[in-house]
Amino acid sequence: LKIFSLNSDPSLSKRISDILGVELGKCSVTRFSDGEIQINIEESIRGCDVYIIQSISDPVNEHLMELLIMVDALKRASAKTINLVIPYYGYARQDRKARAREPITAKLVANLLETAGSTRVIALDLHAPQIQGFFDIPIDHLLGVPILAQYFQDKNLEDLVIVSPDHGGVTRARKLADRLKAPIAIIDKRRPRPNVVEVMNIVGNIEGKTAILIDDIIDTAGTITLAANALTENGAKEVYACCTHPVLSGPAIERIQNSNIKELVITDSITLPESKRIDKIVELSVAPLIGEAI
Amino acid sequence: LKIFSLNSDPSLSKRISDILGVELGKCSVTRFSDGEIQINIEESIRGCDVYIIQSISDPVNEHLMELLIMVDALKRASAKTINLVIPYYGYARQDRKARAREPITAKLVANLLETAGSTRVIALDLHAPQIQGFFDIPIDHLLGVPILAQYFQDKNLEDLVIVSPDHGGVTRARKLADRLKAPIAIIDKRRPRPNVVEVMNIVGNIEGKTAILIDDIIDTAGTITLAANALTENGAKEVYACCTHPVLSGPAIERIQNSNIKELVITDSITLPESKRIDKIVELSVAPLIGEAI
Ligand SMILES: Nc1ncnc2c1ncn2[C@@H]1O[C@H](COP(=O)(O)O)[C@@H](O)[C@H]1O
Ligand SMILES: Nc1ncnc2c1ncn2[C@@H]1O[C@H](COP(=O)(O)O)[C@@H](O)[C@H]1O
Repeated sequence: LKIFSLNSDPSLSKRISDILGVELGKCSVTRFSDGEIQINIEESIRGCDVYIIQSISDPVNEHLMELLIMVDALKRASAKTINLVIPYYGYARQDRKARAREPITAKLVANLLETAGSTRVIALDLHAPQIQGFFDIPIDHLLGVPILAQYFQDKNLEDLVIVSPDHGGVTRARKLADRLKAPIAIIDKRRPRPNVVEVMNIVGNIEGKTAILIDDIIDTAGTITLAANALTENGAKEVYACCTHPVLSGPAIERIQNSNIKELVITDSITLPESKRIDKIVELSVAPLIGEAI
Repeated sequence: LKIFSLNSDPSLSKRISDILGVELGKCSVTRFSDGEIQINIEESIRGCDVYIIQSISDPVNEHLMELLIMVDALKRASAKTINLVIPYYGYARQDRKARAREPITAKLVANLLETAGSTRVIALDLHAPQIQGFFDIPIDHLLGVPILAQYFQDKNLEDLVIVSPDHGGVTRARKLADRLKAPIAIIDKRRPRPNVVEVMNIVGNIEGKTAILIDDIIDTAGTITLAANALTENGAKEVYACCTHPVLSGPAIERIQNSNIKELVITDSITLPESKRIDKIVELSVAPLIGEAI
C-alpha cells in the first residue's frame, strides 16, 4: 500500500496518512518553464496498490491533468492497482445536456480517468449519484452527511428544522434530518411569469425554529445566502448552513460574511486558502471517512 | 465544413478562415466563476465535417481541456467528423521514458484526444515523428521547413551553412539545407567527464559563412543562444536562427535580445503575446499550409 498526494490537498493527505499510519509516498509534481507538468515518482511502486489523493478543485484543469499524468506514470511503472481518492469531483455540475450542444464534461472526465489507467475511484458526495454510472471501473461513493450530523448533534441545538435551498437537494436534507430527528423544509423558488423576479416560497414550518441549510456544493453562495434571508424574513430564529464542498468562488466569502448565516460548516474536501478562512466558517475533516474507505 | 477556433490562436484561425473563404463558427469558450470551462456552440453542426483549431500551448492544461470539452460537445451534437488542427502539440517532449517512473505524456494526450471523440488530427512539426504512431486515428503531419526555406531564399543570403544546435536535429537541418542548396554543420556538445563543463565542438565548416540555426521548438532559448555564441567564436560571419514553434518561456526573450543572433524567424503555430514581440523576431504564417491540408 502506497499513498501519494498531488498538489490539491496536502494537508488532508497528511491527515489521512496519519490516520492510516502510512507515510506519504515521495513524489514531486512541478512545472517546466513553459507550464507543462513534470512528475517525478521518487520511490519504486512496482506491484503495489497505489492510492492517489487529489481533488479536481480550482485550478481545476491543472489538478485534473496532474492526476491524469500521475496515473499514466504509475501505470507505466507497473503499479498493481491505481486507486483515485477524489474528495471533490470537479465538473460534476456538467452532468447532462441542459441545452442543445452542451458537453457532458462529468462523463468526459470519467472517461479520461479510465483511459489514463485508473482501476478504482473513491469519491465523496458526487453532485448527482448518477455520476457513479459514468464509470466502468469500481467506484466507492462516500457521504458527508454523517460528519455534518455529528457536528450539529454535539452542539445540542433545540427545535431544529433542516432546510433544502432548492428542489434538487431535498433527499440530502432528509438524510441530515433523519440523523438529527428533525423535520424538513424546502425553499421553493419559482418564477410566476418569464422575466418576473423569483418568488421565494417556503414549504414547511420554520417559525421560531433554528434552521440548518444543507447543500452539497456552495460555489458563489448566491443561493444559500438568499435562502438564509428568506428563512429569517419568514420567522426562523437562527440560520446555520453546511455543505460538503466549499468551492466558495468569486463573491462567496463576502456574501457569507454579510449574510445572516450564523455559522457555515464545511469539510476539507477542498482545501480552503488562508484568505478565505473567516470566523463564521467551521471546517470538519473527511480524513477519518476516507481513511476507512482505503 | 465548419471551422471553430478556441482560445489559443484566434488570429491564426482568422487567417485560415480568410484563406478558405469559410467564416469561423460561432462558439464561446469561457469560464464559470470557479474556473471550470464553459463551452457554448451557437450554431447547428449536425452531420457536418467540423475542424477545431487549437494549439496545446501555454497555458497548456487549459488549452488541452478546452479542446477535449469541445470535442465532447461536438460528438454529442452529432458532428459527422471531428478534425483537430493542432499547430503546436504540447507535451511532445515527454515522448519516452528517459528515466524510471516517468510518464509518457505525449501518448497520454493522444489517448485523451481519441477518447473524447476526435476522428482525425492535423499536426505540424511534431517534436518526434514517432508521435504519429501514438494515434490510432488518421494523422496528417505537416512540415514547417518549406515556409522557413522560402523566407531565407527570398533574402538571397550568400555562402550559407545550416546548423543543427544538437544531435537530435540533424535531419531537420538537412531538409532546410537541401532547399537552400547549402552544406550542414552540427553543434556537438559533450561532457568529457561527469560534473565537468560541456564542450561545444563544431562539426563542419562554418568559417566566414552565414550560419542559420534551425530547431523545432525554442523554449527557454538556452541551447540556441549558446550555439549562436559558439558559431561566432569559431568564425561564422553572421548567425540567423529559425524554428517552427516559438514557446519562448522564462528568460527566452532576454536571452535572444542579448545574443548575437541577428534575426530569429518563427511561425504563428503559437501566438506570441505582444510583450514578446521584439524587433529581431520575424513571424511567418502557417495559415496557407494548414488551409491546404483542410
Ligand atoms: N462550474 C459551474 N459553475 C456554475 N454553473 C455550472 C458549472 N458547471 C455547470 N454549471 C451549470 O449548472 C447546471 C447544473 O446545475 P444543477 O442544476 O445544480 O445540477 C448546468 O446545466 C450548467 O449550466
Ligand atoms: N516542457 C518541457 N520543458 C523542458 N523539458 C522538458 C519538457 N517536457 C519534457 N522535457 C524533458 O526533455 C526531454 C526530452 O527532450 P528531447 O531530448 O529534446 O526530446 C525529456 O526527457 C524531458 O525530461
